[in-house]
Amino acid sequence: MAGNDDAKRRGLLIVHTGDGKGKTTAALGLALRALGHGMRVLVIQFIKGPWRAGEHHMAERLQPDLEIIATGTGFVSPDVREWPPEALQAVRDGWALARERVLAGAADVIILDEINYVLHWGALPLDEVLEVLWQRPAGVHVVLTGRDAPPELIEAADLVTEMRALKHPHEQGVKAQRGIEY
Amino acid sequence: MAGNDDAKRRGLLIVHTGDGKGKTTAALGLALRALGHGMRVLVIQFIKGPWRAGEHHMAERLQPDLEIIATGTGFVSPDVREWPPEALQAVRDGWALARERVLAGAADVIILDEINYVLHWGALPLDEVLEVLWQRPAGVHVVLTGRDAPPELIEAADLVTEMRALKHPHEQGVKAQRGIEY
Repeated sequence: MAGNDDAKRRGLLIVHTGDGKGKTTAALGLALRALGHGMRVLVIQFIKGPWRAGEHHMAERLQPDLEIIATGTGFVSPDVREWPPEALQAVRDGWALARERVLAGAADVIILDEINYVLHWGALPLDEVLEVLWQRPAGVHVVLTGRDAPPELIEAADLVTEMRALKHPHEQGVKAQRGIEY
Repeated sequence: MAGNDDAKRRGLLIVHTGDGKGKTTAALGLALRALGHGMRVLVIQFIKGPWRAGEHHMAERLQPDLEIIATGTGFVSPDVREWPPEALQAVRDGWALARERVLAGAADVIILDEINYVLHWGALPLDEVLEVLWQRPAGVHVVLTGRDAPPELIEAADLVTEMRALKHPHEQGVKAQRGIEY
């Protein structure tokens, strides 16, 4: 793969978790850096629906080096029993795609956005996800984002950052900002 | 300015601090999003020397929408009395440039990378920096990164995220990864 010319370095398993801003955003920043080194980046978004945010416009501008696939329906609930069948199916389809791409080493950096929530809620089997991460080609970096990363995932990861909100503008009545938060 | 077509939204003052990874990286991700919305992004790097990382290659690819200016010498020490004159001068020159660009609203998003350290160490006058941030054009977002953000800066900010390292690969003997950490 382009940019993956240093076989001695191994791909990292990176987790961004916590209740603060910046989990997905830091993954996108990592994407920007990797792209700058000629690496290919694939983002698979769980949860989020097919709306178009700033990163999607950039994926168009930077294709084929940056690919973003939104697999979610936008539905979220911590109680999996409340999930409508189509939301659960979307998560499973998203994971089937992610599984295939990760095992194939389809990009140098693969970002599984918001998958931590999905795992925490039990909407995907954690054992299977960990097994796939373990079996991935050695040079592939995988970044998993979302609140409430399961302890087993944190245990398996090379690098874990917790984003903590010390202050958030919504508390102060400021609206979400285009280009900053979405 | 391009993309700055919603005059009712105001520019945020954002601080990324803490001892974890992802402070600069999350700022770059925010840059990617903003670029996707047609906004212009300027990054002024304090501390870091004129080495070229992944983000610099991307700045070339995305010019003129993304501009990155490295002003540092690479020298770091928490004791300002130990700083060689050229390192102090570089910080002051970097700030003079940042001051001018921020007050002029030279971009929709201006990232002052690692300035928190510099302020914490007293290498720049905090009062003057806060005054300039206060006087900036209302639509301009400013992101300040680095450990040890001074309390007065946190107080002034709209959004503050602390990146905490829960786990770091250097503890485990894994080398820094090109495209991931630089």
